[in-house]
Amino acid sequence: MTDHPHTPKTARVQSPARRASNAKSDIVAAAGFSEFPLDRVHRLIEPGPVIMVSTSRGGRPNLMTNGFNMSVVHDPPILALVVGPWDYSYDALRETRECVIAIPSIDLATRVVDVGNVSGRDVDKWKRFGFTPLPAITVAPPLVGECFANIECRVADDRLVADYNLWLLEATRVWLAESKRGLGEFHHRGDGTFSANGETIDMKRRMTKWQALVED
Amino acid sequence: MTDHPHTPKTARVQSPARRASNAKSDIVAAAGFSEFPLDRVHRLIEPGPVIMVSTSRGGRPNLMTNGFNMSVVHDPPILALVVGPWDYSYDALRETRECVIAIPSIDLATRVVDVGNVSGRDVDKWKRFGFTPLPAITVAPPLVGECFANIECRVADDRLVADYNLWLLEATRVWLAESKRGLGEFHHRGDGTFSANGETIDMKRRMTKWQALVED
Repeated sequence: MTDHPHTPKTARVQSPARRASNAKSDIVAAAGFSEFPLDRVHRLIEPGPVIMVSTSRGGRPNLMTNGFNMSVVHDPPILALVVGPWDYSYDALRETRECVIAIPSIDLATRVVDVGNVSGRDVDKWKRFGFTPLPAITVAPPLVGECFANIECRVADDRLVADYNLWLLEATRVWLAESKRGLGEFHHRGDGTFSANGETIDMKRRMTKWQALVED
Repeated sequence: MTDHPHTPKTARVQSPARRASNAKSDIVAAAGFSEFPLDRVHRLIEPGPVIMVSTSRGGRPNLMTNGFNMSVVHDPPILALVVGPWDYSYDALRETRECVIAIPSIDLATRVVDVGNVSGRDVDKWKRFGFTPLPAITVAPPLVGECFANIECRVADDRLVADYNLWLLEATRVWLAESKRGLGEFHHRGDGTFSANGETIDMKRRMTKWQALVED
């Protein structure tokens, strides 16, 4: 039986871009990550985690540690992040307008704090602190293989950068590796001390006004 | 011995405004609160707490619960907060341009979640949920007596309110009651579950690049 004459050939051949994207997805999946819904990204950021920000400029990736971040909009998934000129990552974010937000479990706390103590101007922090770059799908900066969550982001609004170094980012792809979550994120107390997560309290049934948030 | 003729009388009499401010401070102090340094307010917000926002409009105070907040600038103490038109507090914040951010300990979690489930349009949440208003010094909305921290705030920038309901606030007075801190703040996981704080890890000595932050 022959193809219908109007069947577009492109429906049966993969574009080079699509093949490259699939190859990257295979690498990320092999590292234990699955895609996480974009409209659920607030579940990763709202708890107030210490994060790492991955950027890439001129093919040179960098990492920084950050505690000034938040969820702004559930859907579209808009996040806010402070990155200032004192951060070497600032120029990369300004020029490329993309980054990856990686969330480390508390098992990584020592290395994450050390990442915050040196500048990418001087050292390759990926090599120095033993973090593994994995290919992102929608942005150039790499995912951080050791973190349990990676959020690919593009700059959505930079109106408050000049005055406050506050960047609004839109998540474009999110990855979660439950196997790397351990005790989950940790929280900077703003003074060089950090809180681990303790008990989790389930109040889903009390959140009657916010049913959409508590659904699985 | 007589006063020097040029001694200004005002140096020895209290203005009515000053007397009123002192009277308010006495009430707040009697409730267990002490002033907390403005340039340390990030130590209260950076961990990612669930907060309550106290507003007052036409002499009518209201309370809401919020998980979308962050520290933006250490000094001046700028915070960011999402309050949208779906919140009854939105009009109060827009009209008065001031609020109090109160941080509840996890012992208050049930009442704090319940505050987030009803609208101030319908009920007086202070009365319904048993929260005690205390007089603020620099703003009209009351402090929340049961919370361990209260941050008096004025709107610093509203450029991103129209598009993202994102308010930048400047802290104008901060109060801390260690006696009410208990296990401290708690964190919304974005799905109706909440994390208590567990172990605290001290990495002050590793934060060599950020000495100013780790000083007492």
